[in-house]
Amino acid sequence: MIVYLNGRYVDRTRATVAVDDRGFLFGDGVYEVTRARNGRLFEAARHLRRLERGLDALAVALPPALDSTALLEISERLLRDNRLDDGDATVYLQITRGAAEPRTHHFPPAGTPPTVFLSANPLAVPDDVRARGATAITTPDLRWERCDLKTVQLLANVLAKQQAVAAGAFEAILVRDGIATEGASTNLLAVIDGAIRTHPADHRILPGVTREVVLELATELGVSASEAPLSVRELFGASELFLTGTTVDVMPVVQVDGRAIGGHRPGPVARELHAALRARLVRDTTRAPAL
Amino acid sequence: MIVYLNGRYVDRTRATVAVDDRGFLFGDGVYEVTRARNGRLFEAARHLRRLERGLDALAVALPPALDSTALLEISERLLRDNRLDDGDATVYLQITRGAAEPRTHHFPPAGTPPTVFLSANPLAVPDDVRARGATAITTPDLRWERCDLKTVQLLANVLAKQQAVAAGAFEAILVRDGIATEGASTNLLAVIDGAIRTHPADHRILPGVTREVVLELATELGVSASEAPLSVRELFGASELFLTGTTVDVMPVVQVDGRAIGGHRPGPVARELHAALRARLVRDTTRAPAL
Repeated sequence: MIVYLNGRYVDRTRATVAVDDRGFLFGDGVYEVTRARNGRLFEAARHLRRLERGLDALAVALPPALDSTALLEISERLLRDNRLDDGDATVYLQITRGAAEPRTHHFPPAGTPPTVFLSANPLAVPDDVRARGATAITTPDLRWERCDLKTVQLLANVLAKQQAVAAGAFEAILVRDGIATEGASTNLLAVIDGAIRTHPADHRILPGVTREVVLELATELGVSASEAPLSVRELFGASELFLTGTTVDVMPVVQVDGRAIGGHRPGPVARELHAALRARLVRDTTRAPAL
Repeated sequence: MIVYLNGRYVDRTRATVAVDDRGFLFGDGVYEVTRARNGRLFEAARHLRRLERGLDALAVALPPALDSTALLEISERLLRDNRLDDGDATVYLQITRGAAEPRTHHFPPAGTPPTVFLSANPLAVPDDVRARGATAITTPDLRWERCDLKTVQLLANVLAKQQAVAAGAFEAILVRDGIATEGASTNLLAVIDGAIRTHPADHRILPGVTREVVLELATELGVSASEAPLSVRELFGASELFLTGTTVDVMPVVQVDGRAIGGHRPGPVARELHAALRARLVRDTTRAPAL
């Protein structure tokens, strides 16, 4: 595989960063995972907006040459050069505050170039899990107070996800103060009394691109949706529960902590939204036929 | 400078880790900074105990060959080979869950070797700041709920420290729910009614090695000390405030958010504890004279 690192296209096995990179030393960086199909990015503009917001919050400045157009070109070239331009894939992008020595908590000298890394990766869409519905566990949400930023501060997510995997579950649902915020790497939506409910996009959750698109699709489909905290009690009483995310699309959850949710089978709202999302993905990533 | 990376001693400029290293991608690792003087480590056993506790919490296993003795030998060799065996220095050690592809939040396959990085670094002891006393700002404590683990989840600390530097201050004091927990890279102690007060060593602060030693020295010196939350109001009314840490020893704070603390000059308890700590450091790191 060929990846992009700081202006060069290199083989992944030779793509390395300095031990003094602040990504490695401090988790001082942001990332994005963008869905691609047939070599085209899905909802790239939303990902780029979120990226820009994260860079602003961290006060990391990209060189002017690395504007949105350049990042899109790199992404598409990686898809092409790695023969991922047919079918489903993702593009991973990470930007850190760069490498500087000596190590200091405060920012390195002005002009320290950020580290920019992009890779394209094949995606096995988990349609088998979707068909039967996923299982989840609940676990305390130990993350920091800026979950709205897509940073590489992911150890709490890592430990939660590992707990899920160890329990044979697909996802860990994070719970803070009795509120189910989101999954370890997904957003969480419930259907209660026929309406969608999901945590407000505040500092406690990541404003997921798929979440945003799915909420728009719900409106188009005439399903009402509200952004308000979801208690664990409400979660267990929901008629449907589902996850959204770049790599899972819409994923019904049929069991949490061993208890069945919504009759232990994927529900109609999740199925309908998944179909609508897939249709949107196909529409936006289908190349015009060659003349 | 020569550093140690995964079994090899290499020049720092050539010390790199894979972009797939989980330290870089997830902040999935722990670290230690150990004080050294005259080529000898100070309180190495406490640092190694904390390291072990962190590795256990993260479920990262070191290869058996990398036991405490080996880590100490590497540290001392780095001090020697980099000519840091005369005067003050630190040894930085970081261990991550290693590099694995594809990227997954959950742990990589069993047997994935952890990444082990050590470096020795010169230390400029901030005695000039100590003489006049340091300034600090307060800022919200945004960190996660496992501050007791010395992980590289340090972005909240980075942003807080940068805020301090931008304000011309030495340290940022982190405040959560009205409680001053600790500094961005130091522990915080106050003197109230003649007794030392500092936050309990629970999940909200890092159990600092210097903090621990200083609390023991206080007992030896007959200064009573209690571990209990310190409110911001109490902080501003304290007769003394000081920071402890591997690179700052005991650092009096004479001003917070522009307000004077304890008469705007270093107080007697901080001065006495610093002298005792320095004496301990000298005692423990003085080589027996050659015969």
